[in-house]
Amino acid sequence: MSNSVTQTARAAVPALETDERADHFVVRDGIRCAGAHLIIDLYDADRLDDIDHIEETLRRAIEVSRATLLHIHLHPFEPNGVSGVAVLAESHISIHTWPENGYAALDVFMCGDADPDACIPVLREAFSPSKIAVSELLRGRAVHAS
Amino acid sequence: MSNSVTQTARAAVPALETDERADHFVVRDGIRCAGAHLIIDLYDADRLDDIDHIEETLRRAIEVSRATLLHIHLHPFEPNGVSGVAVLAESHISIHTWPENGYAALDVFMCGDADPDACIPVLREAFSPSKIAVSELLRGRAVHAS
Repeated sequence: MSNSVTQTARAAVPALETDERADHFVVRDGIRCAGAHLIIDLYDADRLDDIDHIEETLRRAIEVSRATLLHIHLHPFEPNGVSGVAVLAESHISIHTWPENGYAALDVFMCGDADPDACIPVLREAFSPSKIAVSELLRGRAVHAS
Repeated sequence: MSNSVTQTARAAVPALETDERADHFVVRDGIRCAGAHLIIDLYDADRLDDIDHIEETLRRAIEVSRATLLHIHLHPFEPNGVSGVAVLAESHISIHTWPENGYAALDVFMCGDADPDACIPVLREAFSPSKIAVSELLRGRAVHAS
C-alpha cells in the first residue's frame, strides 16, 4: 500500500499571526460568494517539466495576488510532469503539467481580499503558452448569509 | 513575511514503485481529455470543523476512487474552518470548509483510471449535506494527441 508511506503534513507550520482566516465571504461582480475559483488551461506551453521554475511561478502568483502561502508541495513524475499544490489562507492553487503535450491544468481558488486574476499575467510570462483558457466559478453563491 | 516560514514539502515522500504517472490522457464520455475535474459544493453540511474526520474522509474518498495518495496536508483555521489538499498520482483533491455557514467547497481532479464519481457517496455519508452540487469539467480536451 503506497498510502502507508504517505506523510501527513498537518500542523507542520506553526500558528502565525496571519493564521486568521482570510477566506471570508466576499461580493464579486455584485454576487456574494465564498470566493472566485479560476479554472485555467495552458496550451503549447514551455518549461512544464522544470519543477524549480514551477515553484517559483506559484510563489510569484501568490505574491502578486496578495494571498498568504501556508504550505506548498510539488511532486515530480517519471518520466515527466509535475503536480503542485499551494494551500493559502485564502484557499489554494494547483498545477498539473503534461510537458509532452505542452499542456498544464491549473486552478486558483481565492477568497477574501486576494486578487486571483493577477495570477494570469504571471502564468503567461512564466510558461509562454500560445493559448490560455480561463473560466471563473463563483463558489458558494447559494450560501445564505449567517 | 509569513512566506518566510512556509515549508516546501517537495520530495518529502521517497520515490515509490507507484511513482509512475497515473494521469495519462483518457477517453471519458467519448471525449479524449486529461481527466475529469469535479467541482463539488456541500450545503447545510455537518462536521466541517472536525479536522480528523475531514482527513479520514479524504483518505476514504481517495481509496474508493482507486487513486494513489502521494501527499496530504490539512490546515485548521481560527476561529473555525479547515482547508485540506491531497496530491494524487492522478492529480488532486481539495476541501475548504465554512462551518458557520454549513458550506464546503471541494474539487476532485482525477486522471487515468481513477473514478472520481466514487467520492460523492463518501462525501454524502461523511458530512450529511442537505444538498450536494456537482459539476464536471473535462480538462485538456483541446489538447492534440502527441
